[in-house]
Amino acid sequence: MAWTVRALADELHLRYEGDGERRIARVAPLERAGPDGLAFVSRNSYLDRLASCEAGAVIVAPEHAERVRGCALLADNPYAAYARAAQLLHPLPGMAPGVDPDASVDRRARLAGDVHVGARAVVDADAEIGAGCVIAAGACVGAGARLGAGTRIGPGVVIGADCALGSRCLVQAGAVVGSDGFGYAQDGESWIRIPQIGRVVIGDDVDIGANTTIDRGALDDTVIGDGVILDNQIQIAHNVRVGEHTAMAGCVGIAGSAVIGRRCTIGGAAAILGHLEVVDDVHITAMSLVMSSITEPGTYSSGAPLEPNARWRRNAARFRQLDALARRVGDLERRDTGKHRGS
Amino acid sequence: MAWTVRALADELHLRYEGDGERRIARVAPLERAGPDGLAFVSRNSYLDRLASCEAGAVIVAPEHAERVRGCALLADNPYAAYARAAQLLHPLPGMAPGVDPDASVDRRARLAGDVHVGARAVVDADAEIGAGCVIAAGACVGAGARLGAGTRIGPGVVIGADCALGSRCLVQAGAVVGSDGFGYAQDGESWIRIPQIGRVVIGDDVDIGANTTIDRGALDDTVIGDGVILDNQIQIAHNVRVGEHTAMAGCVGIAGSAVIGRRCTIGGAAAILGHLEVVDDVHITAMSLVMSSITEPGTYSSGAPLEPNARWRRNAARFRQLDALARRVGDLERRDTGKHRGS
Amino acid sequence: MAWTVRALADELHLRYEGDGERRIARVAPLERAGPDGLAFVSRNSYLDRLASCEAGAVIVAPEHAERVRGCALLADNPYAAYARAAQLLHPLPGMAPGVDPDASVDRRARLAGDVHVGARAVVDADAEIGAGCVIAAGACVGAGARLGAGTRIGPGVVIGADCALGSRCLVQAGAVVGSDGFGYAQDGESWIRIPQIGRVVIGDDVDIGANTTIDRGALDDTVIGDGVILDNQIQIAHNVRVGEHTAMAGCVGIAGSAVIGRRCTIGGAAAILGHLEVVDDVHITAMSLVMSSITEPGTYSSGAPLEPNARWRRNAARFRQLDALARRVGDLERRDTGKHRGS
Repeated sequence: MAWTVRALADELHLRYEGDGERRIARVAPLERAGPDGLAFVSRNSYLDRLASCEAGAVIVAPEHAERVRGCALLADNPYAAYARAAQLLHPLPGMAPGVDPDASVDRRARLAGDVHVGARAVVDADAEIGAGCVIAAGACVGAGARLGAGTRIGPGVVIGADCALGSRCLVQAGAVVGSDGFGYAQDGESWIRIPQIGRVVIGDDVDIGANTTIDRGALDDTVIGDGVILDNQIQIAHNVRVGEHTAMAGCVGIAGSAVIGRRCTIGGAAAILGHLEVVDDVHITAMSLVMSSITEPGTYSSGAPLEPNARWRRNAARFRQLDALARRVGDLERRDTGKHRGS
Repeated sequence: MAWTVRALADELHLRYEGDGERRIARVAPLERAGPDGLAFVSRNSYLDRLASCEAGAVIVAPEHAERVRGCALLADNPYAAYARAAQLLHPLPGMAPGVDPDASVDRRARLAGDVHVGARAVVDADAEIGAGCVIAAGACVGAGARLGAGTRIGPGVVIGADCALGSRCLVQAGAVVGSDGFGYAQDGESWIRIPQIGRVVIGDDVDIGANTTIDRGALDDTVIGDGVILDNQIQIAHNVRVGEHTAMAGCVGIAGSAVIGRRCTIGGAAAILGHLEVVDDVHITAMSLVMSSITEPGTYSSGAPLEPNARWRRNAARFRQLDALARRVGDLERRDTGKHRGS
Repeated sequence: MAWTVRALADELHLRYEGDGERRIARVAPLERAGPDGLAFVSRNSYLDRLASCEAGAVIVAPEHAERVRGCALLADNPYAAYARAAQLLHPLPGMAPGVDPDASVDRRARLAGDVHVGARAVVDADAEIGAGCVIAAGACVGAGARLGAGTRIGPGVVIGADCALGSRCLVQAGAVVGSDGFGYAQDGESWIRIPQIGRVVIGDDVDIGANTTIDRGALDDTVIGDGVILDNQIQIAHNVRVGEHTAMAGCVGIAGSAVIGRRCTIGGAAAILGHLEVVDDVHITAMSLVMSSITEPGTYSSGAPLEPNARWRRNAARFRQLDALARRVGDLERRDTGKHRGS
């Protein structure tokens, strides 16, 4: 899959300096890239490494072109250009169109002509599979589900009945889209299950990580906007709405009916309670718990910092006395003020 | 699947007011329900919306019957009645009895006559599958496992060998029941695996969420009581016992040999350490960590609250000085008292 | 699967006292073991129970041999000896070598002669499966993946293309090894996917829990050392390196490029941020968040302790005022000192 520097530059709409016929075969780290390797520098702190870099080409900001020893590809956003170049050099594995003889595809499913369905995959009645989709080995697509063009679902993925994914989505192994939401009415000590009749509706260019789960809505749909990226082991409950281009790191949990804005980032293992709203451009740091709506953009955190266990035990014990401690300080202040007034 | 109001009332043992022949086809939100829609009001704050509601029927408490414009179904617990009505109007999808030709069912497995086994599902030797069970596509039922009547397991679910589920359980896609518990003896720096020879034993009417995992016991069984409901991505370790009607939200983790009482609720992403006991009627809020036994019913919490990151950094840094701060306050108090005594 | 006490002692290189011909069929708890049962005592606090114990044999430290009523197997580390004895008495279920007729094995895959491939399992081209491996029902082994001798992967497990596991690994149901890492470049509000071309490379004797996920590296590999044990629902991001014999409890998350040392233990639901280093012999308690590198062995914790909700609310509210409170105490101290100086 080698590209000339010139061809890469053309495809990515970048200028370059140096030998345009140089052949590039792979991306590689700055320190280890060889003559057929493409590296990048996006932070000034790495510029010094260019002096000893043997990469065939390096993507840099235009003002640093002269520091590159091999070819320089010039980009205002070198990291984004690198990502696009890497997609050209290392495309997702091509999957031959066709249905594996060991797959089970219902005859009422509608598959575009160039779809790949792997061994032991199951596609149920009335599912609609867009052009160029890949359904990997062992994946299950439920009745009436829809995959937009170019969407790929990994091994063992389950797409529930009537759920819809847009185009160019990438779903990693073991993810579940469209499980029943966790909805119950309490009657005495019993929980009465409430049928979950909404769907999951996912936009275009959405990535979903391995073993992530997204529940279908109770009445309305659970909705994931265009360009959202979700890491592994995330749990999205019923009727959540996630705005466009929001990113969530691994192990995040979003409770039912939460509405998350656009361009948010949610750090790993953070959780957001249900029935609240987070506006656009909010950033939540790792393992934080969002207990009420966030109405202003910005970065938010919760938690207490890591310490050696012996010290932590002493400090944590004091946390339980914090309100009392604050009152004691208030008492001291009042007596201190009284004394000043009295003196 | 339309029902008349009269038939619904009969089936649910409710009184009604209005036209009993009105046909109801679906549940719907109060604001959007049409003439064939059924809505409900369980909180007084929603009563005002009844004036403009166009639902064919609304379930309300008896004292609010006159505020309903269409038919009124009268229930002391409108939400529970709504849940039951929704089950009638939106039953789980009927699955034709029979074994899909693409399923693999061991000839020594015992299936009741009206069981559905989907494509690519696997049922191993001596498994016992009760009447009306549904084993969805790609699910695996291990050797000697037992499913009670009417239990449904979703796509890709794995039920380990010899594990037992009661009747009317519902297991969502990707859940694993009966993986090996995490039991090891340390020998120098090595971990020696301890065979996990217990089972998982699950009661009747238990719901298990997508990608939830329940480990088999080391010697004794892991036991989940009747009527327990578990959301997605929950981890239940070996030899845990969960009491009847306890509910756990997504991403909860329960460590080995913990004993959880009845009618508890465990909030999302909370964790309970091993070898401890939580009595009946305990409620744990989201992302709390239970580090020792809880002997009194009530609601418990841990953690520190969300703040803008800049403020959080300052406060979190002070957490590390909390014990020292408390001592400083103690010193001030002693000196203050000394002064008072001295003056 | 009965063993005589003599045969167990020989196999485990232990001394014994009592009737060497006694037949032992199973391990059992001290309180319930019968004449064919094997129990153990590893803590002195359990020694009193030996008086009423009816076990056929008990593993104890040599100095306690005389307190055992039946046979005594003598071991310096009774718990480790028990684990090994349990492996002899309760071996992993034997799986008949051979490929199930309902499995899909690519003809270019290379399988050693005594491999078991279960129903509906998929083994892709150029996969290399070592002697004695077990690939359970519904598992998928990707193209070019390698399993060392004696490795067993459970139902529904996914091993990604080109990933490598060592010998004698045990992977529980639903685990995913080799999903794409979560790597994106930001371009305006869009996320540009970066191809993940590294592998996951796993050593010998590694155990991986149910629904645990391990991402492949971006450029370099994600590496799990020999003897590592991972519980269920763990997330290991791309380019993480985990040192030999480290153990992680359920629901742990490790962010990208973190380097974890050897012999560490990571408590349940703890998380470790990316691009940091944790040295050997570090122990992290449950639900702690590691936000920066740890350079000294020891035990570390974070978080605030569990309390009744009403008290927790008061204390947590004060957490938000902690920096201000510390300043107020500083003010009081300064005024107090001033007064002392003034007096």
